[in-house]
Amino acid sequence: MTSSEMKETKRQKVNKLPLYNNCNFDGYDSQKLMLQTEKLRNLITKRGTFEMLIPLCCTINPLRYKQFRELMKGISSKTLTRRLKELEKDGILERHAYNEIPPKVEYKLTKKGQELVESIFNLIHWMIKWS
Amino acid sequence: MTSSEMKETKRQKVNKLPLYNNCNFDGYDSQKLMLQTEKLRNLITKRGTFEMLIPLCCTINPLRYKQFRELMKGISSKTLTRRLKELEKDGILERHAYNEIPPKVEYKLTKKGQELVESIFNLIHWMIKWS
Repeated sequence: MTSSEMKETKRQKVNKLPLYNNCNFDGYDSQKLMLQTEKLRNLITKRGTFEMLIPLCCTINPLRYKQFRELMKGISSKTLTRRLKELEKDGILERHAYNEIPPKVEYKLTKKGQELVESIFNLIHWMIKWS
Repeated sequence: MTSSEMKETKRQKVNKLPLYNNCNFDGYDSQKLMLQTEKLRNLITKRGTFEMLIPLCCTINPLRYKQFRELMKGISSKTLTRRLKELEKDGILERHAYNEIPPKVEYKLTKKGQELVESIFNLIHWMIKWS
């Protein structure tokens, strides 16, 4: 490969999306990556969101409000309710209301949500390892 | 395997740490996982921390303050400085000050930091995919 061909390949590498899985971002443009991840980055890094993913890692069953509530002592009910709405609005959780007395509401991961939860396993393992 | 042996295995599964990599947390105790990840969860979900990891994904070279500064427009200088100190204190970044005029300071990932960055690749891929 000539010197200019190598430069072309590197430029292409920088502009292309990396392959999903088994591909790091070395050489990728930081600014571009910042922009590409902005919307979901803002959602995931909001206070309480990551905490909500923890119980969702631990079961394939739907979860009820109170199950999140019990685990997330440092988060206000108002914030928790708001996060649940946002995660539903952003297509990460599905909400199911059952016509029972008393009423029952469950939250279940969508496909997008399931992939999110799977994508944080390594991060959680890192936290356990280095704690 | 008898019924009581199966229960014992499940109890063991719930109490044991999952294998690093290729292992999900299904059946794991949420409260335990919350506690195990608490300290590093609090660090990683702090405002600005995740953003700082983005440029650290894109290069193996050390970074200077101004490189973080340019990418993180919505974060105050005070917060950025504080995060850099915290990441250094928590053993994720190493700080190197060069005795030059003008003085030069670089930040480089430690082993712990490198593993952190690698652990978020899947999450970043998820953000790109679903944006």
